[in-house]
Amino acid sequence: MINSGEIKKQIIQAVETVKRTKPMAGSITNTVTINFVANAQLAVGGSAAMVYLPDEGEFLAKAGGATYINVGTLLPIYEQTLPHTAKVLHETGKPWVLDPVAVGIGSLRTKLLEQFREYKPTVIRGNASEILALAGLWGLDGGTKKSNVRGVDSTDSVSSAKDAAIALARYTGGAVAVSGETDLITDGSVIVLSYGGSHFMEKITGAGCSLGGVIAVYATAASPFIAALTGTAVYNLAATRAEKKADGPGSFQVQFLDELYKASAEDIANNPFEIIEI
Amino acid sequence: MINSGEIKKQIIQAVETVKRTKPMAGSITNTVTINFVANAQLAVGGSAAMVYLPDEGEFLAKAGGATYINVGTLLPIYEQTLPHTAKVLHETGKPWVLDPVAVGIGSLRTKLLEQFREYKPTVIRGNASEILALAGLWGLDGGTKKSNVRGVDSTDSVSSAKDAAIALARYTGGAVAVSGETDLITDGSVIVLSYGGSHFMEKITGAGCSLGGVIAVYATAASPFIAALTGTAVYNLAATRAEKKADGPGSFQVQFLDELYKASAEDIANNPFEIIEI
Amino acid sequence: MINSGEIKKQIIQAVETVKRTKPMAGSITNTVTINFVANAQLAVGGSAAMVYLPDEGEFLAKAGGATYINVGTLLPIYEQTLPHTAKVLHETGKPWVLDPVAVGIGSLRTKLLEQFREYKPTVIRGNASEILALAGLWGLDGGTKKSNVRGVDSTDSVSSAKDAAIALARYTGGAVAVSGETDLITDGSVIVLSYGGSHFMEKITGAGCSLGGVIAVYATAASPFIAALTGTAVYNLAATRAEKKADGPGSFQVQFLDELYKASAEDIANNPFEIIEI
Repeated sequence: MINSGEIKKQIIQAVETVKRTKPMAGSITNTVTINFVANAQLAVGGSAAMVYLPDEGEFLAKAGGATYINVGTLLPIYEQTLPHTAKVLHETGKPWVLDPVAVGIGSLRTKLLEQFREYKPTVIRGNASEILALAGLWGLDGGTKKSNVRGVDSTDSVSSAKDAAIALARYTGGAVAVSGETDLITDGSVIVLSYGGSHFMEKITGAGCSLGGVIAVYATAASPFIAALTGTAVYNLAATRAEKKADGPGSFQVQFLDELYKASAEDIANNPFEIIEI
Repeated sequence: MINSGEIKKQIIQAVETVKRTKPMAGSITNTVTINFVANAQLAVGGSAAMVYLPDEGEFLAKAGGATYINVGTLLPIYEQTLPHTAKVLHETGKPWVLDPVAVGIGSLRTKLLEQFREYKPTVIRGNASEILALAGLWGLDGGTKKSNVRGVDSTDSVSSAKDAAIALARYTGGAVAVSGETDLITDGSVIVLSYGGSHFMEKITGAGCSLGGVIAVYATAASPFIAALTGTAVYNLAATRAEKKADGPGSFQVQFLDELYKASAEDIANNPFEIIEI
Repeated sequence: MINSGEIKKQIIQAVETVKRTKPMAGSITNTVTINFVANAQLAVGGSAAMVYLPDEGEFLAKAGGATYINVGTLLPIYEQTLPHTAKVLHETGKPWVLDPVAVGIGSLRTKLLEQFREYKPTVIRGNASEILALAGLWGLDGGTKKSNVRGVDSTDSVSSAKDAAIALARYTGGAVAVSGETDLITDGSVIVLSYGGSHFMEKITGAGCSLGGVIAVYATAASPFIAALTGTAVYNLAATRAEKKADGPGSFQVQFLDELYKASAEDIANNPFEIIEI
């Protein structure tokens, strides 16, 4: 089993590679938090580009080092854009991060998320309810038949999504990150719990979405598992630091972007985590 | 007639219920200020979710405690989504807030706003020119035949929209909030003027839109009139406080979100207002 | 050739006219940075309005003093909206600013940018790779056959785009602004280099887009060349000032909006620039 020294080494490598190479991770993402996703990607050292059209999704999939797909606010054209882009990503072996926001709402969302089963996202990031519902939708162990998603919020605990997360990671051969008070990251063979964060993360919109975008940036430079863990660790670290300087959710958001930018590779690697055998 | 003590009691109840229950108010709103709407809704203690598609609008209408509809940046799909969602809201008796942004621009906007007449929005929030033009479009007293809307800005004074606001509130059986230097809220039988605010509110985008979203949050926990007044009061209070700490519109926006978050129920209830007999 | 005293005088006039008249500059722009564009336009004293539909684009084109068109995140309806709006702008002689974001990506983007050749944008603002690629697309001197655009980033230097910028300006009869470490503005007969800025401008999204929107605001009150130069100058000035107070990209963005708002006409005119004969 991977040990904590090896994990830290790989996190440092991922962070430094990104800062040095400014890798592009394109996104097809919701309009609510699209600006925050881009700014977070830039803050950690990546480059961002967002599109809506099928051939532009294909372009970014091929041109970028990784891609971020978030189904938050679906538009009609997504019926063509998302499966096409996911197919290109799968066929070219490019890493991509899926954020199954609000799985269970609406027929197109369900159809798209069912289609993604075939294209095996490299990293799946969501809250506990989303991970449970996606595993259920894909007929995997540990999933829930019915989505407990409440709008964009989770009604389940991170630990309750452990089996679903493991099943999803084993199915895709990639990694899964379950976001919550303590975050759970797994590649199907090991689980890491990442600590830190802030209560303000629930008082701003886009904490989860932008983490998905940042994981895509790291996925250009690391394994799915390390990318998911690195993104989660820098988020927990930056949120902990930002909360100390914040007077409310407005100033927290500003401080959080500053801390994302300032976090060193060593500090990210040393953000508290715990390895758990499966 | 309702007295100021009763009003304050109901405002306190609305604010505390929201902070305790984190009610979801879904939105179909413009892309310019969608992030600010969501962050403002979260700051006062609510939960936000935004969609574009017809069946997703229906889902949110049914799942949320109230819904916010803003016609700022129309997309083609809105021709289906907006009337369908408004119809569901009307039929299920769920409260909803209409923001008739830039009424008078374009044929789809006019058609949609005409259709909303039948579905009687619980709260209508707009600037004076919008309220005047909507009353005119619906053939109500006090309205203007021709919209004086200049892009998204008002060219009329709040007091000039008094009769239109009363007529709209009497027609819908709900409440109307006219935003301006001094804000006017009416349920058709009484008018309340709400004081405070900041000149910076005109120097940032989304002050009005996000107020509409926040009123929807309070509409999950109070009458339309109290919801409109509570939202307006917390905005005037937070803006007054934020201006003192702000050095320009950038820092004002940050401080404003912080103050929305920090405002206590008592302070919101005690924000200066005046009751006027009709 | 225009001298620096005359340039400064015209910059002061543009800034003061905007602050006094609050001119509206409508936009059809991408969803990533649409909020930042609007806030920047408001910060310098203008008024903002954004739309997506063809008849609404026409309305804004006629109602506004100038219009900003940015092809960053294309939606299907843009196939109708953008050529229609650009045609109206051209026929009515209204100034408009084109931001050819990510030229070279996707078939609709290419088609639209080809169509704009006929409607001669008054100001073209882009990074060096975009200016080179647009000149190439339009078959002008100095352009590149193949776009070197990398997502939304430039891979070429500002100076390498000098000939392309001159050719574009001569073709349109307007002005071109090439954004980079040192910015180049030309009307085809003279070049001005504008100094200042901050390394943080590359660490936030929307620095370029919002500059385009601000140039549109100034284009309501000045020649294309002076509008492009005034916008660039206030950006360089505000960025220089904001960097001194910023601790990272989050606080930089806040400070930058504050400094845009606070910059005086004289300070903008005195921001360092250099006139170069062609």
